[in-house]
Amino acid sequence: MPSLSPYKSDLDYGYAPGAFPAMECLLHRPDCARRVLLHSKAEGTEAAEKLTALAEKLRVRVEIADKALSRISGKENCFAAAVFSKFDDALAAGRPHVVLHNASDCGNVGTILRTALGFGVEDVALIRPCVDVFDPRVVRASMGALFQLHVRTYDSFDQYQAEHPWRMLYPFMLDGSRSLPDVLAGDIPADWTLIFGNEGSGLPAEFARMGQPVRIPSNDRVDSLNLSIAAAIGIYGFTQKK
Amino acid sequence: MPSLSPYKSDLDYGYAPGAFPAMECLLHRPDCARRVLLHSKAEGTEAAEKLTALAEKLRVRVEIADKALSRISGKENCFAAAVFSKFDDALAAGRPHVVLHNASDCGNVGTILRTALGFGVEDVALIRPCVDVFDPRVVRASMGALFQLHVRTYDSFDQYQAEHPWRMLYPFMLDGSRSLPDVLAGDIPADWTLIFGNEGSGLPAEFARMGQPVRIPSNDRVDSLNLSIAAAIGIYGFTQKK
Repeated sequence: MPSLSPYKSDLDYGYAPGAFPAMECLLHRPDCARRVLLHSKAEGTEAAEKLTALAEKLRVRVEIADKALSRISGKENCFAAAVFSKFDDALAAGRPHVVLHNASDCGNVGTILRTALGFGVEDVALIRPCVDVFDPRVVRASMGALFQLHVRTYDSFDQYQAEHPWRMLYPFMLDGSRSLPDVLAGDIPADWTLIFGNEGSGLPAEFARMGQPVRIPSNDRVDSLNLSIAAAIGIYGFTQKK
Repeated sequence: MPSLSPYKSDLDYGYAPGAFPAMECLLHRPDCARRVLLHSKAEGTEAAEKLTALAEKLRVRVEIADKALSRISGKENCFAAAVFSKFDDALAAGRPHVVLHNASDCGNVGTILRTALGFGVEDVALIRPCVDVFDPRVVRASMGALFQLHVRTYDSFDQYQAEHPWRMLYPFMLDGSRSLPDVLAGDIPADWTLIFGNEGSGLPAEFARMGQPVRIPSNDRVDSLNLSIAAAIGIYGFTQKK
């Protein structure tokens, strides 16, 4: 692999910036790990030693690459990163899914990946137009959770549904016809799909006719909840339901 | 007021960047509003017209200030802002509180303010060292929720407790002795205080001996949840409990 450029969506590899996300990459996607980059200032630290030991075991090359690190992360204080081949997994049938429809903020998407994994939801779909799930800002905000999930990006919601028909859909909308506690008081099938819309505009109106639209019972003193917050409340509620 | 400098903590005024946060400032803290700044590119837009109309009614001066906007927001695309006098409110006794102990990320704090307001929690304490709650990045992430809340910053948790003794404390900790659903299944007094720790280090160990430590039942596949996510799940759970 030649010199590393700043991240672009059309590259076939991505960057996991930060010692923790880089370690998660080596641990959970060892086949995808191409290289580990370390800053000269990180040499001798415990995090660097652990990364180096695991990389050597996996026969992944470790390089001191101060300039490349600041170039690819856009930050001066990035001391480690993994370079990994992008992957694409089918989502599991019969398991919970989270669908992010036209999500536009990298931090939100990364945070939602981290939350989903924390509550055992391993399958996440993104619907275009949306952020690139391999953007280093997503990987960083996910704290490397990306490497333990099945994530697939679809051109449209129809394409997701064609691959996963007959699932029970729960679109989260400000005017959803039932409140979350009310929905959770009833029966929930094992193959639920929670759907969340864009940060500014939410879900298109046609989602109100799909499955069971859900409203989070917040008051009208705020315009809406932050996307990653709404998703967390939904994921927490559905996964606590036994 | 002379020319506006980039935000600093020791100024007695702050900035609410963005048309929505600026409007919230005028609506909910009209006595604190000092000036409205508009970008020349925003003139004639609906948001600018609404801001201008309300400012005129409140006798708050409106200025076209392209350079000041980019200087105070650090962004090229900030088209409106309010300049406001900082305020300091006592927290209400007998009402729910959220306490953020040593929170270090402006986005997290702003998002938590927005979530708290959305679920009707109006009183938020910050314990130093922590971010400045008037930092424009906090105000922006709060979407102006700051202007509808009582927010006070304390030098220590002891100082908060001296002002608000005898409250029921719920410190959120990774190893909290009871899980959130379990705590919510029992009785909760009206004057609950939820306490959340620093993004990296959580709460100091001594909080395990205060009140009822709470654990959010996530799995160990993630190191922890994002602070704003943990706070949202706690606030949602406690406010749904009737």
